Amino acid sequence: MAKAPVLTPQADDFPRWYQDLINKAELADNGPVRGTMVIRPYGYGLWERMQADMDARIKETGTQNAYFPLLIPQSYLTKEADHVEGFAPELAVVTHGGGKELEEPAVVRPTSEMIINDYFSKWVQSYRDLPLLINQWANVVRWELRPRLFLRTTEFLWQEGHTAHATYEEARDFAARIHRHVYADFMENTLAMDVVLGRKTARERFAGAINTLTLEGMMGDGKALQMGTSHELGQNFAKAFNTRYLSKDGKQELVWQTSWGATTRMIGALVMMHGDDNGLRVPPRLAPTQVVVLAIKGDEAVLAKVREIGDQLKAAGLRVQVDDRTDTPFGRRAVDWELKGVPVRIEVGPRDLENGTAMLARRIPGGTSQAFGSGGGKEPVAIDALVGLLPTVLEEDQALLLRQSRERRESRTADVSTIEEAAEAAAAGCWARIPWADLGEEGEAKLAEHSVTVRCLVTEDGSVPDADDAPGNVAIVARAY
Amino acid sequence: MAKAPVLTPQADDFPRWYQDLINKAELADNGPVRGTMVIRPYGYGLWERMQADMDARIKETGTQNAYFPLLIPQSYLTKEADHVEGFAPELAVVTHGGGKELEEPAVVRPTSEMIINDYFSKWVQSYRDLPLLINQWANVVRWELRPRLFLRTTEFLWQEGHTAHATYEEARDFAARIHRHVYADFMENTLAMDVVLGRKTARERFAGAINTLTLEGMMGDGKALQMGTSHELGQNFAKAFNTRYLSKDGKQELVWQTSWGATTRMIGALVMMHGDDNGLRVPPRLAPTQVVVLAIKGDEAVLAKVREIGDQLKAAGLRVQVDDRTDTPFGRRAVDWELKGVPVRIEVGPRDLENGTAMLARRIPGGTSQAFGSGGGKEPVAIDALVGLLPTVLEEDQALLLRQSRERRESRTADVSTIEEAAEAAAAGCWARIPWADLGEEGEAKLAEHSVTVRCLVTEDGSVPDADDAPGNVAIVARAY
Repeated sequence: MAKAPVLTPQADDFPRWYQDLINKAELADNGPVRGTMVIRPYGYGLWERMQADMDARIKETGTQNAYFPLLIPQSYLTKEADHVEGFAPELAVVTHGGGKELEEPAVVRPTSEMIINDYFSKWVQSYRDLPLLINQWANVVRWELRPRLFLRTTEFLWQEGHTAHATYEEARDFAARIHRHVYADFMENTLAMDVVLGRKTARERFAGAINTLTLEGMMGDGKALQMGTSHELGQNFAKAFNTRYLSKDGKQELVWQTSWGATTRMIGALVMMHGDDNGLRVPPRLAPTQVVVLAIKGDEAVLAKVREIGDQLKAAGLRVQVDDRTDTPFGRRAVDWELKGVPVRIEVGPRDLENGTAMLARRIPGGTSQAFGSGGGKEPVAIDALVGLLPTVLEEDQALLLRQSRERRESRTADVSTIEEAAEAAAAGCWARIPWADLGEEGEAKLAEHSVTVRCLVTEDGSVPDADDAPGNVAIVARAY
Repeated sequence: MAKAPVLTPQADDFPRWYQDLINKAELADNGPVRGTMVIRPYGYGLWERMQADMDARIKETGTQNAYFPLLIPQSYLTKEADHVEGFAPELAVVTHGGGKELEEPAVVRPTSEMIINDYFSKWVQSYRDLPLLINQWANVVRWELRPRLFLRTTEFLWQEGHTAHATYEEARDFAARIHRHVYADFMENTLAMDVVLGRKTARERFAGAINTLTLEGMMGDGKALQMGTSHELGQNFAKAFNTRYLSKDGKQELVWQTSWGATTRMIGALVMMHGDDNGLRVPPRLAPTQVVVLAIKGDEAVLAKVREIGDQLKAAGLRVQVDDRTDTPFGRRAVDWELKGVPVRIEVGPRDLENGTAMLARRIPGGTSQAFGSGGGKEPVAIDALVGLLPTVLEEDQALLLRQSRERRESRTADVSTIEEAAEAAAAGCWARIPWADLGEEGEAKLAEHSVTVRCLVTEDGSVPDADDAPGNVAIVARAY
């Protein structure tokens, strides 16, 4: 009799597989208020590593972190017309504070454009104050009617960058720099995720932006997920808040602005891009735990050896956990680490000690069920060789994940020339590429009837176009999360 | 004519000095909703350094970070009777979400005991799940009627730790470990702050705790400020949430719990403990910028030299900023760095270059107005000697700040034996030590009429007592923020 699978297989029911994995790998739980979530320590550990990595990249651009209030006077939201229309239906409103009804209700920030721009208009006086480059790590609330953990939650965590520049060109280049050198580099090199960089159509643009740059990833079921966005805001908010600077020539000029954000949604993307039927697979550069050293039995010599190996690997700069919880059956612990997607397990039992070896199991090339090197399942490795071997193994696994995600996207993207073909491809779990000249806003509206959206526009050679209607633009269309 | 002071002098009006400093050093602004604040990049940089340092100490105890929802169903708050009574008057209530009135209003967390305990009761099943050690970095909202930036704000940032243990002793020891080895060590060694460790009286205890351990600091005006607290919660929340574990003997037992927190209030304490009439003085181990290298003039050779010095000092592991903004007058920039309390300034002009020297100004021993070493005001130092000299200078300054704060507290603490003397001392900006046996709860209530509180109880030799009524307990009483 075959063992019951730990998770609902992806092929049977992808959304249920996702839910099972989040639950069993202890990434998150539903919160008591509809749509909110509890991010459990293992899930939060992934977020902390994402934060640290992105934060360093953001700071390299000269951007500084700050913190703006959670509560925003309701009247602020009305200052930029498109913006308020975009967010009004999603707001959480505080009507009572300190035991009294408030004179003016406050909204819980759905994003901080409004409040940050209010302060920008005070802080920016002269060209000397520009560029003003601010980032915030914060929680935001957008009431969610069809919540799904990490992907669409009423409260989520994110970073939101907000910048003001003297010229259009500077703002444009800064938005592009964040898009390419912060987000794309991070996603490709740390998250091992293939992403397509492009620009949003007018229909999909951020409320208040003149241009939205996006990164789109293909999930395991072929649907698209927007991984992050970087917006050129033009002078829309500058006008709304009258944010002006005295130029070197002594003139009062409006600033040009950008904003850009990435969220805890990336954890959901990590699951859906790299997960398999045995659980999550965490890219080694991201992994809070890269290597777990397991004692198979509670034998004194075994326990001493796993701790010794753990110390050696830590000293070599790896992120290591020692699992000596031998009052829990070994099989259950092994399955649990597999679910959590720790890249490498080193398993040590009494027999291994005699041989001076340990069993090395790699999660990413296929877990315990597949071969690596010459052996089947797991490979015995000399304990003395681990410190030398593991950094190479981890870098190979990192590269493999990126390659697999790229190959999936390439093999599941079809070039089409009609709207019908595009809708068909999307329904079959593929992405379609269609010339924007053949699709246009009308075709885009038609696709929307099939729940298919233009994820982004790219140029023929795959780079980011300068304008929606640039000749040769190609639309990438898909179903999306 | 004497130059107008940059700040209201402390001796003239301490609260106004505080407000001036926060404003001019660009630490924070008032937010638009009453009592909220905008933490500006320089203030937030201090918080980031505090966070990183405390986070590492917290993780050393085996505690993991997680994240719980901002919004809590109103009904949760009523589960622990003392707790709800403590927080009810301060709540912000969300009554509308997604365009509709909510069936059950949600409160914005004033603290997360309630929601975290709800999940603890699900996650804790067996003794194997204990101890459960969780920390959260988050924003909380407590409606504030008399707000003051950093000290009392409607929204503030903090960490809140929540733990569950198998026995009373383990929980007690863990609360004490956080008190001493996380909070006190951090405050003394990183913040260079003298703190008194003690236990709160029943009157001052956290709502729902059986014991509250506190750290109290003396500010520049002699008032006390509570810097952090670590609570033993006993089984109060375990009973309210029925949080039980299966013991090794197969019995269902209630857990024992702790919670502990420290907030952005520490930034206010930093200002009031180390600030002087010229501005803030940031302890070098905390300082986001330890050394600023200033170009006095926009001379090519000078600019090249300050950048070179900056690179050398960075390579030596110091946190350095190069100030080459020579389109702003040098004097204004120097005053600004003094206001911000950067420990060391290195000033380079054309004349210095000829001599191969730079002017070195130390902020902590007295800024530009006082001598250090043999010279007056500032000291010329050979540029080649800087890398060797600065680490010593910074460690000296760190020690000096701690010594100054300790000496102030010692010189301004009086041993008294009557309630009248205690109230008098407090009114004069001092702390009073009075035997708890002579004061008692009645005396404590009387002191409250003079706005004087028992900050904590200590033993005769200054350690933390095991019980309120332990013989020899001494009460430390003061006015407080």
